[in-house]
Amino acid sequence: MSLDSRWFTEVVEQTGTAFSLKLGSRVHAERTPYQNIEIYRTETFGYLMVIDGCTMVSTRDNFLYHEMMSHPALNSHPDPRDVAIIGGGDCGTLREVLKHPEVRRAVQVEIDERVTRLAEQYFPELCASNADPRAQLHFGDGIAWMKNAPPESLDLVIIDSTDPVGPAEGLFGAKFYRDCLKALRPGGLLVQQSESPLLHQELISQIHYHLREAGFARTHLLHFPQPIYPSGWWSASLAQKSAQPLVERLEPDRLAALDTRYYNAAIHRAAFALPNFLRETLAA
Amino acid sequence: MSLDSRWFTEVVEQTGTAFSLKLGSRVHAERTPYQNIEIYRTETFGYLMVIDGCTMVSTRDNFLYHEMMSHPALNSHPDPRDVAIIGGGDCGTLREVLKHPEVRRAVQVEIDERVTRLAEQYFPELCASNADPRAQLHFGDGIAWMKNAPPESLDLVIIDSTDPVGPAEGLFGAKFYRDCLKALRPGGLLVQQSESPLLHQELISQIHYHLREAGFARTHLLHFPQPIYPSGWWSASLAQKSAQPLVERLEPDRLAALDTRYYNAAIHRAAFALPNFLRETLAA
Repeated sequence: MSLDSRWFTEVVEQTGTAFSLKLGSRVHAERTPYQNIEIYRTETFGYLMVIDGCTMVSTRDNFLYHEMMSHPALNSHPDPRDVAIIGGGDCGTLREVLKHPEVRRAVQVEIDERVTRLAEQYFPELCASNADPRAQLHFGDGIAWMKNAPPESLDLVIIDSTDPVGPAEGLFGAKFYRDCLKALRPGGLLVQQSESPLLHQELISQIHYHLREAGFARTHLLHFPQPIYPSGWWSASLAQKSAQPLVERLEPDRLAALDTRYYNAAIHRAAFALPNFLRETLAA
Repeated sequence: MSLDSRWFTEVVEQTGTAFSLKLGSRVHAERTPYQNIEIYRTETFGYLMVIDGCTMVSTRDNFLYHEMMSHPALNSHPDPRDVAIIGGGDCGTLREVLKHPEVRRAVQVEIDERVTRLAEQYFPELCASNADPRAQLHFGDGIAWMKNAPPESLDLVIIDSTDPVGPAEGLFGAKFYRDCLKALRPGGLLVQQSESPLLHQELISQIHYHLREAGFARTHLLHFPQPIYPSGWWSASLAQKSAQPLVERLEPDRLAALDTRYYNAAIHRAAFALPNFLRETLAA
């Protein structure tokens, strides 16, 4: 069966896969200085933001990604006060980060202000905490921002980027990771979205290699479902500045207050469960 | 971007989603008395079997489904000796079941012998244990077979079926589940593939309702990635004839001998971790 113009399709030639959502209609399209952004209304996934042909965020399933890019790391740190989000222009990660009362400052450094302005219009629920006094929305180059960040000023860096091509490519290398390491306090953590566990094992292996090359003491892989991304299965890589075991701040009252749809204490532990074939990938 | 004839696409109008794999070519197509079966050679997922337009099994990612339909249940039972697989004609579940030395008999009841004959040709690795003396390949109606199964003759029933439409519809109802319950020994378990946790919550809720209506004492939901199925995220429902807590036979030596690519002790526990939104689904 073939698809007509009533569907949006993300074709990934490299992996030989494609995923499609039935439309609705295209409600917005623009070319910014950085990329092409489109917004679609879909039949079953709410709104869909597409950047340079790649699905970025849908109303229906973004909770999986945003919860898993934030809560496992925040609950693995004893006292995360200062958080930087590199990318993340749809503000969904920022919203999750600010659910943690111990966070006193969350800076979002998004290169393309239009992503945030369109999120405010089509995904207002993700921008619900943008006016929180602890939130700082900075529009600029995340690589430059991190290079200039004061040493030991952050507890957590979340790299909520697009794929490692185009403007985001520099966010996946040892040079950038070294700047992150410098900006982190002792005990600090870094989380990087790291693509599909099934389709991108070589990239995952490289990310972990670059993180250790940059000086991070230990790395971990988390995984979770994300239906609109290639293969429907996604990962985040977590790196520790110091080598001590990760804490697990999973008290029921704290977790209930996060008001999450996917994440809970059992899911926290489940996300760290490494399949056999990924153990081999990371050991290689 | 649109897809041409070099892609196979499974379109699911009901969920407004589609998944595509780049071809290769179609290497086989036939209409059996039960369904249309096609085999494609894909560019990146090996061979792909399609039944009535739905993706069934690919060389690259079937290990996820087959391991998770068998090992969590077998390792939750203290001594699974007699196993029935309803459906499962590609023989991949049978192969995983027979990795357990305590299994003394595994009957596969597939309605369409052509599925198995084509699996032997295009997925020979899945049929590696078909000649095991403990394996019984029976081609016939699983509903009738279960109705006539001797009472208390089985320890585990695995319902490895297609979607609940067409020939498989009767495998999702309380009447069939009652026959399974009768055929199970005390302490026996049933596993049913139960579709996507994100897309098919109503169906999952119905399956659990029907299982309890049929007399099963307790039900559980497992989840795992399965890239070629809608949403890339899949589930299995596990039901207990008796109400005692599930055992966890997860000794390292036993698990290592299973030679699995996804499954291990941590994944066993992770698969039972219920996301918040599914807790609500199952409590409703």
